[in-house]
Amino acid sequence: MPPLRSGRQRIAALFIMKRSKAVVLLSGGLDSATTLYLAKQKGFNCHCLIFDYGQRHNREVRAAEKIAVAAGCSFEFISIALPWKGSSLLDKSRKLPVEGYKHKAIPSTYVPARNTIFLSFALSYAEAIGARDIFIGANAIDYSGYPDCRPAYYNAFNRLSLLATKSGVEGKKIKIHSPLIRLKKSGIIRIGIGLGVPYELTWSCYSGGKKPCGLCDSCVLRAKGFKEAGAIDPAL
Amino acid sequence: MPPLRSGRQRIAALFIMKRSKAVVLLSGGLDSATTLYLAKQKGFNCHCLIFDYGQRHNREVRAAEKIAVAAGCSFEFISIALPWKGSSLLDKSRKLPVEGYKHKAIPSTYVPARNTIFLSFALSYAEAIGARDIFIGANAIDYSGYPDCRPAYYNAFNRLSLLATKSGVEGKKIKIHSPLIRLKKSGIIRIGIGLGVPYELTWSCYSGGKKPCGLCDSCVLRAKGFKEAGAIDPAL
Repeated sequence: MPPLRSGRQRIAALFIMKRSKAVVLLSGGLDSATTLYLAKQKGFNCHCLIFDYGQRHNREVRAAEKIAVAAGCSFEFISIALPWKGSSLLDKSRKLPVEGYKHKAIPSTYVPARNTIFLSFALSYAEAIGARDIFIGANAIDYSGYPDCRPAYYNAFNRLSLLATKSGVEGKKIKIHSPLIRLKKSGIIRIGIGLGVPYELTWSCYSGGKKPCGLCDSCVLRAKGFKEAGAIDPAL
Repeated sequence: MPPLRSGRQRIAALFIMKRSKAVVLLSGGLDSATTLYLAKQKGFNCHCLIFDYGQRHNREVRAAEKIAVAAGCSFEFISIALPWKGSSLLDKSRKLPVEGYKHKAIPSTYVPARNTIFLSFALSYAEAIGARDIFIGANAIDYSGYPDCRPAYYNAFNRLSLLATKSGVEGKKIKIHSPLIRLKKSGIIRIGIGLGVPYELTWSCYSGGKKPCGLCDSCVLRAKGFKEAGAIDPAL
């Protein structure tokens, strides 16, 4: 026999049951954490996907888990140690670029087809659990110039997802949302503060140390964002 | 000091160095084996990708390894045990469909976004090793009706790959080839016999037993193919 529930509990349970599921890619950084809280605010029942892909800063994996727990969301880990390298983010013997984001060339921290791998798993997960929405915290303003962070890429993935899946064939499109794509880092942080994102749990530094290095692209963009937002980074 | 080489060895080494690299998705079935031999015939230096994704018929993984060895090609294993199921090919507690390929609906052996996951890894691998060509043995004639085996899907993935990668941004497009897509199974087998594909090493059966079941879609389509090609299946 199911446990007896109060009227309020019954209404809450019904609300949870009725909420649409969404898959949220959660890296442990501030963009994906903000995206998770935005998806929650929109009323989605969020299922997080966390990737360990051999990144030198795999401290972010633990950060992602803490954020998912803080948000009260379920999460799945995907471990995909890539046998190839091709990125200074995977290969600790290579030096990380400094101010790589300021150069016109794509920096060495670019991981070949990373977001395509992440989104393909998200698409599979979404279809398997009946979710019609996928959220990713990609940003094409204060970013490192990665090609798979640009709006055109997400438009192309949305077209692909329609053709790739049984859901798509049946007219139940699974849509990729990248709500931060055209925001400045400071704008993202302001939104996140309003939503109560636990930025103290997030991890951005690429270098793989115990404390943020303050020098890598990710640290510099984060510091610039908090400064411009007029806020103090609670993770420091 | 490098070992001394004869003139012929030096010419052979030069030829190998000059051949373009290609990534070939190798499942262990007859379509992907034929595709590998087609790519070899075109002169590519083939690097195979073999996936263990929790399929009930993971005997095909060992078959794929044997085929790569027979073809004299390098290979990489990718292990991606999906935490979700959503397919009778992943969930042994579900029954496999019989003659699923004859029905209009997509059969239960469809694995959510499988080819998108495979191709995203292939794209990453290709970019990391400097390959500009990816081969996949998808077929949209004698097949189970999977959405990610249709020409429109591959066209969409080719558009995506251009936007997804550093190579694409730099004008070095990585192209997906699906040379079998419009061939009948019998036509594939005839080509493969001409190329010397070791069909005795291939494995098609979905059921996960020690011998092919002869009943699942994959067995039935294979038997029909050999019969129509007027050939005997050397794996039986």
